[in-house]
Amino acid sequence: MTITTNKVNVEEQAIRAKKAGKTLSLLTTEEKNEALLTLADILDQEYETILKANEEDLKNGREKGYEAAFIDRLTLTKERIEDFAQGLREVAELDDPTGITNSDWTLDNGLNVKQVTVPLGVIGMIYEARPNVTVDATGLALKSGNAIVLKGGSSAIISNQAIVDVIHQGLEQTKIPKDAVQFIASTDREATQQLFTMKEHIDVLIPRGGGSLIQAVVNNATVPVLETGVGNCHLYIDAEADVQKALAILVNAKLDRPAVCNAIETTIIHQHWLDKNKDALIDTLQKNNIHVHGDSTITEIIPSAVPAEETDWANEYLCSDIAIKTVANVSEAVQHIETYGTKHSEAIVTENKETAEKFMKLVDAAALYHNASTRFTDGSALGFGAEIGISTQKLHARGPMGLKALTTIKYIMHGDGQIR
Amino acid sequence: MTITTNKVNVEEQAIRAKKAGKTLSLLTTEEKNEALLTLADILDQEYETILKANEEDLKNGREKGYEAAFIDRLTLTKERIEDFAQGLREVAELDDPTGITNSDWTLDNGLNVKQVTVPLGVIGMIYEARPNVTVDATGLALKSGNAIVLKGGSSAIISNQAIVDVIHQGLEQTKIPKDAVQFIASTDREATQQLFTMKEHIDVLIPRGGGSLIQAVVNNATVPVLETGVGNCHLYIDAEADVQKALAILVNAKLDRPAVCNAIETTIIHQHWLDKNKDALIDTLQKNNIHVHGDSTITEIIPSAVPAEETDWANEYLCSDIAIKTVANVSEAVQHIETYGTKHSEAIVTENKETAEKFMKLVDAAALYHNASTRFTDGSALGFGAEIGISTQKLHARGPMGLKALTTIKYIMHGDGQIR
Repeated sequence: MTITTNKVNVEEQAIRAKKAGKTLSLLTTEEKNEALLTLADILDQEYETILKANEEDLKNGREKGYEAAFIDRLTLTKERIEDFAQGLREVAELDDPTGITNSDWTLDNGLNVKQVTVPLGVIGMIYEARPNVTVDATGLALKSGNAIVLKGGSSAIISNQAIVDVIHQGLEQTKIPKDAVQFIASTDREATQQLFTMKEHIDVLIPRGGGSLIQAVVNNATVPVLETGVGNCHLYIDAEADVQKALAILVNAKLDRPAVCNAIETTIIHQHWLDKNKDALIDTLQKNNIHVHGDSTITEIIPSAVPAEETDWANEYLCSDIAIKTVANVSEAVQHIETYGTKHSEAIVTENKETAEKFMKLVDAAALYHNASTRFTDGSALGFGAEIGISTQKLHARGPMGLKALTTIKYIMHGDGQIR
Repeated sequence: MTITTNKVNVEEQAIRAKKAGKTLSLLTTEEKNEALLTLADILDQEYETILKANEEDLKNGREKGYEAAFIDRLTLTKERIEDFAQGLREVAELDDPTGITNSDWTLDNGLNVKQVTVPLGVIGMIYEARPNVTVDATGLALKSGNAIVLKGGSSAIISNQAIVDVIHQGLEQTKIPKDAVQFIASTDREATQQLFTMKEHIDVLIPRGGGSLIQAVVNNATVPVLETGVGNCHLYIDAEADVQKALAILVNAKLDRPAVCNAIETTIIHQHWLDKNKDALIDTLQKNNIHVHGDSTITEIIPSAVPAEETDWANEYLCSDIAIKTVANVSEAVQHIETYGTKHSEAIVTENKETAEKFMKLVDAAALYHNASTRFTDGSALGFGAEIGISTQKLHARGPMGLKALTTIKYIMHGDGQIR
């Protein structure tokens, strides 16, 4: 398969998506669900075509010397494609987020007012290596009645194009117009930048990927952005923290899946707790091969710890390293989180309910945990069904974003000649 | 009074607002309400100080040769200040939008999850001449637990400073820190631009004013924006429209308050309706001194009409002028609105429910009216209480924005050691 990396007409694709979105928005829930099931079936059938395309991306990636973890994320298998298909079937099972009447009232003059949920219109998805986003985002967009413009990373472009070709083939058997799914088949940065300002045709941009991708979109887009996912998350172990709970949560939040955004990067420890429990802490860190970057108190008691620098507090490790800071009280912990946190997930371990309450009130983040692991900030763990990302912004959607985040509202008024 | 128009330290003011916002967010509803009532009382008491300051702005404005309508919007009177105070008392009566538990569930592992509403943090308000925004926006921000940074237009700077001085004097008698209300006492454009990118300290920018102000904020801000209010609204009179309803709605939506954003600017008329009702239409337009800019069909039948140009379809008149276009069907009307509308308020007059339904589904706007005037798109008319603006965007808030638009959510999890 060859990919045209010549200039693509991004604007024309966005206009087509918008037009197709109108048709899509008029379909029934059943029609949309049938389409999702059709897409699931065809992905299962056509897995070999997708694997063949993926092989080309992998070959290019190896030639370019990409690291193993990157190649791993890029690699598709029959099982992974079956998972994609299964994901679409699960989205078909979810409630339709559109057409819901949130409120319905009648003014004294007889004018009836309804607030109803409707699709946003066109979603622009800008993402990096993982080809699963191509299927997941398409499924959530179509279910919520939205057209989607996909701009994936260049390293997965052949796989993504093959997936979208299969999706288009499937859509031809459904009531959803093919044009509702647009793939920007270009490795050109300019193509991405064109999406940033296409306010007339695109209703929202959702970046999924590393911090620099997300910042590029946030800083340059005039199209509204749903900001997702950088998680510089903290665990604060209070003076009155139960030692078993604290250590179990530390290990789980750090190591269960270190590369995801809801893993912790820094542990903040109250000096009194440290004084009492330092042996247990050191033992736990060593047994679990957690590499520590600490402040001076920590480097003094943990010989293997290296001194933490500014970047240790500010950045995600996304591996088994951890930064540890000691504090004299909860206010210092809150202050540290205020300075370095990314408003994602923050946890406190304490048996003192008032301290926990204070932490919950003062820390500004999407998800706050008292005596539990930050790893629960996840659509499926919280029971939301599939998620399009985890919002770290405050407007529109915060925390795990399900189908509802892809809708807006309309006020629909019915009268018989009311004037003001 | 003299205003320092030297460099003000906008960042320092924003940092202070953020810090004060934390304290404010911990106050009870009663404490916030008491503060609002105190502010109302002191505005009533200190009206002379404010009027004296306003006199200076008016003098400057006259010297600069501002037009009468502008001077009128700038002018304060004892009664208008009493209205400001009354507005604050009404906001005190409204329900507190924060601290509401939207949902509360417990996972199988015993982890309790609550989604609760919390203040956004710091609101940046960028607005033009009307000094009432200084009081209205402050009242809504404080009630919803938010600090506010106010940047008003330079023509009202002395009045706004005087109002804020009075508010600060009042806040000293309350539990709300003075710093929760910051006024940028500068006529410097740079001061406004600094607000655009102050993501660390400001959670949302709300521009209120003309289209060019709003576009400057939307296009240049990296802080999330709540876009308000340009309304290029349309009335579509269908083939099956009742003539009485159509003409009454036309006159009301155009003339009740032509300068506001929910007034109509263009009427789109089905050719068949026009053929039958042109005498009644012409009579109504003439009696009401509505000046018509029309397409060729209209200029042929209305001798006083001038030919409409592209700008007539695209812009708000905000006066008693109207553009009239004829169409062959509802799809053409929808298409015209798609091209020129600003997604604010759009109306159809028809006795055919299916046509109305089609219009409601296909037109993308915050508020859609069937057989009623667009003038109802207004927080108080719809029974929402005070409004901070009318959102023409799709994310976070759409249509009239009340206190709820100034809140976000937090997920609060309580556990006893849950890990994943």
